[in-house]
Amino acid sequence: MARTIQTSVVTEVPGPQSKAATKKLDTFFDSRAVHFVVDYEKSSGNYIVDVDGNKYLDVYSQIASIPVGYNNPALVAAAQSPLMVAALVNRPAIGNFPSRDWHDILKDGLLRVAPKGLDHIFTAQSGSEANELAFKASFMFYRRKERGHGVEWTDEEIKSCLDNAKPGSPDLAVLSFANSFHGRGFGSLSTTRSKAVHKLDIPSFKWPQAPFPALKYPLDKHVEENAAEEQRCLDEVERQITSWHCPVAALIVEPIQSEGGDNHASAVFFQGLRDLTKKHGVVMIVDEVQTGFGATGKFWAHEHWNLTSPPDIVTFSKKAQTAGYFFGDRMLIPDKAYRQFNTWMGDPARAVLSKAVVGEILEKNLVEECARVGDALYAELGKLAQKHPQHIRNLRGKGYGTYISFDTKDSAALVRSMKELGVNVGTCGVQTVRLRPMLIFEESHIPILITALDKALSLNR
Amino acid sequence: MARTIQTSVVTEVPGPQSKAATKKLDTFFDSRAVHFVVDYEKSSGNYIVDVDGNKYLDVYSQIASIPVGYNNPALVAAAQSPLMVAALVNRPAIGNFPSRDWHDILKDGLLRVAPKGLDHIFTAQSGSEANELAFKASFMFYRRKERGHGVEWTDEEIKSCLDNAKPGSPDLAVLSFANSFHGRGFGSLSTTRSKAVHKLDIPSFKWPQAPFPALKYPLDKHVEENAAEEQRCLDEVERQITSWHCPVAALIVEPIQSEGGDNHASAVFFQGLRDLTKKHGVVMIVDEVQTGFGATGKFWAHEHWNLTSPPDIVTFSKKAQTAGYFFGDRMLIPDKAYRQFNTWMGDPARAVLSKAVVGEILEKNLVEECARVGDALYAELGKLAQKHPQHIRNLRGKGYGTYISFDTKDSAALVRSMKELGVNVGTCGVQTVRLRPMLIFEESHIPILITALDKALSLNR
Repeated sequence: MARTIQTSVVTEVPGPQSKAATKKLDTFFDSRAVHFVVDYEKSSGNYIVDVDGNKYLDVYSQIASIPVGYNNPALVAAAQSPLMVAALVNRPAIGNFPSRDWHDILKDGLLRVAPKGLDHIFTAQSGSEANELAFKASFMFYRRKERGHGVEWTDEEIKSCLDNAKPGSPDLAVLSFANSFHGRGFGSLSTTRSKAVHKLDIPSFKWPQAPFPALKYPLDKHVEENAAEEQRCLDEVERQITSWHCPVAALIVEPIQSEGGDNHASAVFFQGLRDLTKKHGVVMIVDEVQTGFGATGKFWAHEHWNLTSPPDIVTFSKKAQTAGYFFGDRMLIPDKAYRQFNTWMGDPARAVLSKAVVGEILEKNLVEECARVGDALYAELGKLAQKHPQHIRNLRGKGYGTYISFDTKDSAALVRSMKELGVNVGTCGVQTVRLRPMLIFEESHIPILITALDKALSLNR
Repeated sequence: MARTIQTSVVTEVPGPQSKAATKKLDTFFDSRAVHFVVDYEKSSGNYIVDVDGNKYLDVYSQIASIPVGYNNPALVAAAQSPLMVAALVNRPAIGNFPSRDWHDILKDGLLRVAPKGLDHIFTAQSGSEANELAFKASFMFYRRKERGHGVEWTDEEIKSCLDNAKPGSPDLAVLSFANSFHGRGFGSLSTTRSKAVHKLDIPSFKWPQAPFPALKYPLDKHVEENAAEEQRCLDEVERQITSWHCPVAALIVEPIQSEGGDNHASAVFFQGLRDLTKKHGVVMIVDEVQTGFGATGKFWAHEHWNLTSPPDIVTFSKKAQTAGYFFGDRMLIPDKAYRQFNTWMGDPARAVLSKAVVGEILEKNLVEECARVGDALYAELGKLAQKHPQHIRNLRGKGYGTYISFDTKDSAALVRSMKELGVNVGTCGVQTVRLRPMLIFEESHIPILITALDKALSLNR
């Protein structure tokens, strides 16, 4: 069902209409980061259309968050359903007054794709929130083990926590990795280590970070070096866990560090993390906010690892169109109601949409399709890298669906050129171009992307 | 247009269907806080219907978050509009690729009700997130003033912030009040001081808290005492600001402390806070997550204060059906793009709904109606308090619309009785019953509420 739609750029980018609309919006809404203003009605499938009538192949997908294409008919049907209208206009405090539909919305939606071994869910509204809720669950779990099962809170704990003081408000840490991105709340930002623009001037918790493996490419030519690098990082993780000034209650890791530069590590490394976290009683949180929902050629990127036991918590957002975390151990449910709670606890409207996303992915085998198309895309990029070896370096993502990236001299300039050539693509890290097509990206789109990239690289010499 | 619908409770509460549905949901979603499971299709206006067919007058309104009634026709129309469908299925990274409609959705919606003097907006998804974004804006603002306008970041700042270390990650604080509730993220929770169940076991920032005035009732009999109490609290605020171990960049305060027990203070107190924050260069954040959108008989509760200059930041959520903050000083926009940013930056679908909420409130003069009906309700409650003086104590909220509350012996037991009598009502603090009807609560509903309360109090003697 390949639909060949030509891209078409008829103005400079951004065009005059985009510029005017951005300026108008900026009078009350900070618009300095706007790339262009979009006509979503005219956008369709893999193609995004701006207000100047420019049509781009979109392989950035709203920072990796559009799952199955603009104006996807199955999502439109879900959006027009009575279930959606009710979810929108009668927004409940889900924890107190759930709708009679809430069970089925989850059961027939997100629960269908729950990671193996993780059969419980807590719903949220963003990846940042999901990660922070996972941290809170981990901290309560840690103290529950320490306090002893069934042991009541002391008066001193109850009183001191209101003063943000010990013992009620304990010194506990989450370990994360250099170059990681886990969000921008005060807790999640304390584990984010990507860029100063995310963190500068914001108070943070004094939590530890470990190095993330810096693998050398091509992988098959650096097997021993890379294994040693991963072991070095694992050793440092264990050192941090055992020597930090306070207990490390949880470790959070992205399967592929995305915002931080599309940094990969091997299944052996992640199995090592699972072993270390088990050994030291640390909750292992896998942040699948960007990697989850199929783009790596598996529904969850951590399925690539064949772990001996599942992660304790897996967080999700972006392509799910809603957010939350999955878990298995019921001890991660706090000892009392209302401890893990908030007014809305997610958004049933977004959960209805995620049910449609899940249905579309499973029904159309989009994960398998993504794996297949990704392999073909990777092969074509490999050829292009041979033609432009100084411009396409460290090509990565082989076997990871369309979750492909490479380093280049001036990624920002390349991305600007690509827009002018009709392809919307994103950057990450300091020198990386990341491809984040939707799950409906087909083989017919590969030549459009490759041709534009070839031309852009020839221009940017 | 009084529609008299009788409440009807035909089973125990929760009924057998609710219990069964809750048990089923609990297999994968923690359901210990569920009051009852709701049939939202059958719910209408001020009335909520559970899956057992029980119909309650709802004066709790999903923890104060339903603005204009269940299945409100104007909201249903908005939910069925093409604008909504597009917003749902093409969820943008608003900061990068806003829709051509985004300007008008805000301009014709939330901006219509922007607090006086605050003509800029940042959008979010929850009250917690809105408050944390306000904190971040305050911290960046503080450091910008300290660093000097236009002065570039140093290499040391850039590097140290990635390590969560000074000077890039500075020690700066937000001052909040005892018994306040500002949310459950790691930053917002550090300013929340309401209950141990919200805070225990969660690491927090060592930020200061000041006492919030403990006023005595009736107010007209304790004028001097209450004025002295407010001055004591103001003095303590100034002492904290000038003596805390690190700079206090912002102060956050609820116009009425809601979760913490419906604690009021006078306009004089809040003017005092405005004076102190001005004097010491502290950003004044007014948390109108629960008080905003009309329920106090003004659109924003802080309008009751007639401040000499507006607050610096006003946060909102709940009845807005979306969230965010308003501000006026453009210096609160950070010096570079992407510092105050995240993938979704709110939800356009929820913003479309909020536009309909704003339209409904303004078109039907619901704020004025709420003020009028609230006065009548307060008068009736005053009479009931005379009948049950030991059960209705410290009646408060006179002149604050329907934002009314009182202390009682066993608030949890009273709320249970009220449900059995067909009225859904909430608690707060340790001994308080809070009324949070929707803005469409009419005089015809007052007798239903009063009759049930009279009966419940007679039962609970």
